[in-house]
Amino acid sequence: MKNKGIFTKRIEDLKNITQHNVKNILIFNERNIYYLTGFYGKDSSSILLIADKKNYLFVNFIYYEAAFESINPSDVELILYDKKNNVLLDILKKVKINELTLESSSITHTDFLNISKKLSEIKINTIDYPLKELRQVKNEEEIEIMMKNCMLTEQCISFIKNKGSDALKEITESELAFEMEGFLVKKGAFSKSFDFVIANNKNSSKPHHAAGNNKIKSGIILMDFGVMLKNYCSDITRTFIIDDIVKNKNKFLEIYQIVKEAQLSALSACKEGITASELDKIARDFISRHGYGKNFGHSLGHGIGLSVHEPPFISSENELVLKENMIITIEPGIYIPGFGGVRIEDMVLIKKNNCQRLYSDSKELTIIN
Amino acid sequence: MKNKGIFTKRIEDLKNITQHNVKNILIFNERNIYYLTGFYGKDSSSILLIADKKNYLFVNFIYYEAAFESINPSDVELILYDKKNNVLLDILKKVKINELTLESSSITHTDFLNISKKLSEIKINTIDYPLKELRQVKNEEEIEIMMKNCMLTEQCISFIKNKGSDALKEITESELAFEMEGFLVKKGAFSKSFDFVIANNKNSSKPHHAAGNNKIKSGIILMDFGVMLKNYCSDITRTFIIDDIVKNKNKFLEIYQIVKEAQLSALSACKEGITASELDKIARDFISRHGYGKNFGHSLGHGIGLSVHEPPFISSENELVLKENMIITIEPGIYIPGFGGVRIEDMVLIKKNNCQRLYSDSKELTIIN
Repeated sequence: MKNKGIFTKRIEDLKNITQHNVKNILIFNERNIYYLTGFYGKDSSSILLIADKKNYLFVNFIYYEAAFESINPSDVELILYDKKNNVLLDILKKVKINELTLESSSITHTDFLNISKKLSEIKINTIDYPLKELRQVKNEEEIEIMMKNCMLTEQCISFIKNKGSDALKEITESELAFEMEGFLVKKGAFSKSFDFVIANNKNSSKPHHAAGNNKIKSGIILMDFGVMLKNYCSDITRTFIIDDIVKNKNKFLEIYQIVKEAQLSALSACKEGITASELDKIARDFISRHGYGKNFGHSLGHGIGLSVHEPPFISSENELVLKENMIITIEPGIYIPGFGGVRIEDMVLIKKNNCQRLYSDSKELTIIN
Repeated sequence: MKNKGIFTKRIEDLKNITQHNVKNILIFNERNIYYLTGFYGKDSSSILLIADKKNYLFVNFIYYEAAFESINPSDVELILYDKKNNVLLDILKKVKINELTLESSSITHTDFLNISKKLSEIKINTIDYPLKELRQVKNEEEIEIMMKNCMLTEQCISFIKNKGSDALKEITESELAFEMEGFLVKKGAFSKSFDFVIANNKNSSKPHHAAGNNKIKSGIILMDFGVMLKNYCSDITRTFIIDDIVKNKNKFLEIYQIVKEAQLSALSACKEGITASELDKIARDFISRHGYGKNFGHSLGHGIGLSVHEPPFISSENELVLKENMIITIEPGIYIPGFGGVRIEDMVLIKKNNCQRLYSDSKELTIIN
């Protein structure tokens, strides 16, 4: 983040949001800790205590120096910590905390039991997702980073098209995944944001098929990929055909057209004020009317930001009203085991009266020759 | 796994180990589910029920087809599941289960509360690591895969040496990380097993420094990396110098020598019968006697297998007695903020009377010219 003051503000925002319900929150999620302090300790088991008067970041030996360089000492005090010492308890006693709220969605039940035992003199409450409300609406700087990331990610579509059919048929799904990652990292991405789905022909009926060691052949190629840029994720899915040869081509063209129109109808309805479940229903009803409801077995999309999947989840059960400056994916699909599948996924920025696609490529079926 | 019967056996072993304490276990950890069924659903939120008469694997739409292809139907029945339906509860009622043990180390506290609420008629117990005892001792096939993986991983050391100083100084830490991954994937690895640590000069004082966008320069280069082969991990750390130029070279040579000898002393003591804490103490005492105890702030090593970090943890608190066919890392280090660090890490197979290093390269300081 360019603006260090943003962390001070976010800690204040968190306190304002939660002040009526909770006091003294322990945060375990590394992305939430980054969001509030600027320190991103991947798998570091760090803990952030947001307390009334002062905040403390507990970091072990391995990450201590990195944390020291990342945080703003006026926001948080850095404490060297490991699971076996009692420094957390000592601090709680020192600042006279007798009630504590744990972020229960980011701690295993085992760790919850261990901490509760260690802090047996303190009243323990829990909160599921204390930063949900804050993180799901993006600020200007986050939107700028994510737009840049999408522009970067989209270049990989041209990279694949430009390779052409002959070169694609010389490599395996996982080699293509690796070449795509290499292309994106050279362009400035930090790393992939999840394991790329590269699914050729009937593999494409598995929505999260892990790219395999099979050579790519003519036919369907479904690619679901994304990268990290300044800790923010991108996510895109395209389904193309190689060589204009598909087994049962009419079937493929039919489902491609249905998925495309289902996606366009959701895109055109997407704006501030609609609920997540209403948006899901628009695409789902369209696909069901065309007879493929059972073949669209996942939800329509998800929020994206520091995590590739984060609230708001765009599913039939979520009654949340979408707000301006949320960024979500819209990704209907139809999957037919033994044949293949189609998914088309965009990232969009929610606006007052519509939504802005963060990719600019066409939805027409791409044939790679 | 070549031998499908292995899964039947492992489920039996788990039942035998736990029969006196627990009945009807719900397993959430995806590696544990793979270990028991052959289905590896990364981030798939699948659940495995090991019950008295029959076992059930609950998998959502996205992973259903992959699970169907992976499992042995005589071991487990596959059930289409998502969080909103009641199929888990229905099965529990059908098979008349009124007591259930949850794997508490692999479920968030939030999910624990939700499941407990949904299953309010059933008595809920918890167990931390039900597969710890099984997974930490490797069988012949696992040892063979992991040995192959280490041989593959070690080739990357030669790859780096062969690049030479001039080529290294043209790229950044993260570009080197990516080239190394590419080399290993082309040789047959599936993917990296964790984000590679590539730390040049003073970055090497951060034990888990994330490879950055800084160009590599003459001096210290600490590389900690590993890859997946058939779902099993490798892990290795080497500290080299580029161009035989290091700021305060005597200091560097001193700490290199201490770390090397600390590691050799632990390696020579490592065999069945020693406890994890005794092994940790050997290397730690050696480093402390030479005045750098405070600069070795992490534990000596860890078990490795389906997870890159798994029991047995080789730390001062772990009184576990090491057994034949455990595979662990031994990785002492000395880190001096503002200067740099040295870590040397091997993977070893514990034997009755000694241990077998799974890497064959020399410990002498490598200078890349």
